[in-house]
Amino acid sequence: MAISEKVKNALEGASWVRRMFEEGEELKQIHGEEHVFDFSLGNPDLEPPPSLKKALKKLADQPIPGMHRYMTNSGYSETRRTIAQFVAEESGLPFEEHHIVMTVGAAGGLNVTFKALLDEGDEVIVPSPYFMEFKFYIENSGGRIRLVDTHEDFSLNLKEIEKAIGKRTKAVLINSPNNPTGVIYNSGPLQELGELLKEKSHELKRTLYLITDEAYRRIVFDGTELPIAFRFYPHTLRITSHSKDLSLPGERIGYVAVSPLCEEVDELIAAIIFANRTLGFVNAPALMQRLVAPLQRNSINIKEYEEKRDLFYDSLSSYGYQVVKPRGAFYLFPKALIEDDVAFVKELQSKRILTVPGRGFGRPGYFRIAYAVNRKVIEKSLPGFKEVAEKYGMGGR
Amino acid sequence: MAISEKVKNALEGASWVRRMFEEGEELKQIHGEEHVFDFSLGNPDLEPPPSLKKALKKLADQPIPGMHRYMTNSGYSETRRTIAQFVAEESGLPFEEHHIVMTVGAAGGLNVTFKALLDEGDEVIVPSPYFMEFKFYIENSGGRIRLVDTHEDFSLNLKEIEKAIGKRTKAVLINSPNNPTGVIYNSGPLQELGELLKEKSHELKRTLYLITDEAYRRIVFDGTELPIAFRFYPHTLRITSHSKDLSLPGERIGYVAVSPLCEEVDELIAAIIFANRTLGFVNAPALMQRLVAPLQRNSINIKEYEEKRDLFYDSLSSYGYQVVKPRGAFYLFPKALIEDDVAFVKELQSKRILTVPGRGFGRPGYFRIAYAVNRKVIEKSLPGFKEVAEKYGMGGR
Repeated sequence: MAISEKVKNALEGASWVRRMFEEGEELKQIHGEEHVFDFSLGNPDLEPPPSLKKALKKLADQPIPGMHRYMTNSGYSETRRTIAQFVAEESGLPFEEHHIVMTVGAAGGLNVTFKALLDEGDEVIVPSPYFMEFKFYIENSGGRIRLVDTHEDFSLNLKEIEKAIGKRTKAVLINSPNNPTGVIYNSGPLQELGELLKEKSHELKRTLYLITDEAYRRIVFDGTELPIAFRFYPHTLRITSHSKDLSLPGERIGYVAVSPLCEEVDELIAAIIFANRTLGFVNAPALMQRLVAPLQRNSINIKEYEEKRDLFYDSLSSYGYQVVKPRGAFYLFPKALIEDDVAFVKELQSKRILTVPGRGFGRPGYFRIAYAVNRKVIEKSLPGFKEVAEKYGMGGR
Repeated sequence: MAISEKVKNALEGASWVRRMFEEGEELKQIHGEEHVFDFSLGNPDLEPPPSLKKALKKLADQPIPGMHRYMTNSGYSETRRTIAQFVAEESGLPFEEHHIVMTVGAAGGLNVTFKALLDEGDEVIVPSPYFMEFKFYIENSGGRIRLVDTHEDFSLNLKEIEKAIGKRTKAVLINSPNNPTGVIYNSGPLQELGELLKEKSHELKRTLYLITDEAYRRIVFDGTELPIAFRFYPHTLRITSHSKDLSLPGERIGYVAVSPLCEEVDELIAAIIFANRTLGFVNAPALMQRLVAPLQRNSINIKEYEEKRDLFYDSLSSYGYQVVKPRGAFYLFPKALIEDDVAFVKELQSKRILTVPGRGFGRPGYFRIAYAVNRKVIEKSLPGFKEVAEKYGMGGR
């Protein structure tokens, strides 16, 4: 045996996802890429905003001496100061430079946070459906993921969370706007969650943490304002990136913001910085740290995603699909029209439509559509969705 | 207790290094940064070569649509193809695109390699003195570091390695040119190491791996040619970065190259790609992947480092310091003039000279000088080194 047993098992467990991916690739080979409607991956098709392109051009034209060197593992002071100021204004809390650690995207941020917090066997509670990579991130640091169901409309189920909190619970991880559902958790349930965590921390005589993955925080629709989790619970860490709002997913730039109200905040930040160094990230990419700092209030044109959501949601609903209307991110998570979500995803494949079965997100019987693609791809795919609906006797509206 | 026990212990263990760092910062506060001679960090002061700056300017002026998007977790095909071709020419082995995985620097590359290979309790043998971060990288994946001594001149001690190989050994990790010694391992010992690993793999009935950290591979002096480890043992993985040869340490760009002769090579590469994804790196920074690909034969002016080595080595030797003459990297690892390397480093601090005690690299009684700094800093520091030598009765030459 060459490779790690653990990794071998994980690779085998993932092999049906891989098989579906390979079937998709085969479809592209047969029909040509432009005739396959690929909604399988959340890879934004929008270009970064002009402000970012301009900033890159300026740096390339007038390089700053030393701009590619190592800096402190937490990132440039100036970048962290700018972000701290932004988060302070947003939250009304006294964020300062040292509460921010620049990371290799949100995925890097989550990994360093779990490394900083978890010991062997510690549990992290995650409302499901959920982004399946969370499981690996938590297990990388010896932790265990504990999934809890959400309500039918994918909103937080406080009772389920309460039941799940036990001796080994270290944190609750929420992801809002949510991948795969596009749901945003409202202030009400967040307030209740904050109170629950306060009570339970008191009861357990140790601090429980709230970790919020806000990778899609700027992709919100219908004039919604994303509730600021920092306001509802002191021991809160925000992890986010500029992959989606500035359309830079390949560049791996994000940050962890630790609430200044967190217990032992300095020690926690020292642990996060240590993890950033020793997990091999070392620091977030230097050039990108400079570019994103002044763009905290910039973003790609969110309206484009909203229009795609409208088109897709309205069309699928009219064909008879049951879909919770997403208020953010760029995903739809409709109910499959038959019980077996894998079989249903294959049915869609026969119409050259690629999606991901719900069981990949802890919720069989559903499927995920990632619509960060060209509008024409959505338009051309709709007849296929309609035909499948008709096959299963959906009357439509 | 807020943070992970494991991390808390690691932070406490590292606290004397931190204390020395803080003392150095204090010195800078008191005397002004320009009057403190900081040789504590390997942060290259050279700017990237003009070819890199030109390529960046070109991409910024004429952005390629989609150039900031996600790509496959292993990196761009084109980048990997170019690197594979380079490694193939260098090694005479049939490297292809799929033998290369682009990583977040060499630190990222080492972490994904250990994750791919190690199970709980597996051992990795590392010749000492060694780069202290290796311990964390190995332990992150549940492995254990097993240090073995090198000879007096820091060359590989094959007998020590042989003695250390046991039931739990999974790999030998070598770092050449070496941090902290600047030593390059010669072909002879590498040949012997390859034979030893072949024998032991046969004896243990499973494959042992050779992992080579070649972060300093292009920084070699005196016309030395770095021996190509791939030639001496089939189950070899090279991990390297462009932090030093293209002076891009803050940008986090490197790669893992897996020998095409490796046992179960495809499975091993799949495991490395999986680790790259799930450890949260996701992919190496997109922009840098494009920039470094065509620059495999480019580098900063190595001669500058060689001249600094000459100045520093000749001067210290003439003052009576015992130093193995480095043939690469940008470090010197002289013997301390008293037994206690921490006390000796403090002695140098009294001359406003910052270095790192040898015990930070597994070798008390020595100290490390990182000379990737402006030549003037070296020149101005020399009287201090001389005074300390005189204090301890070194006659000099």
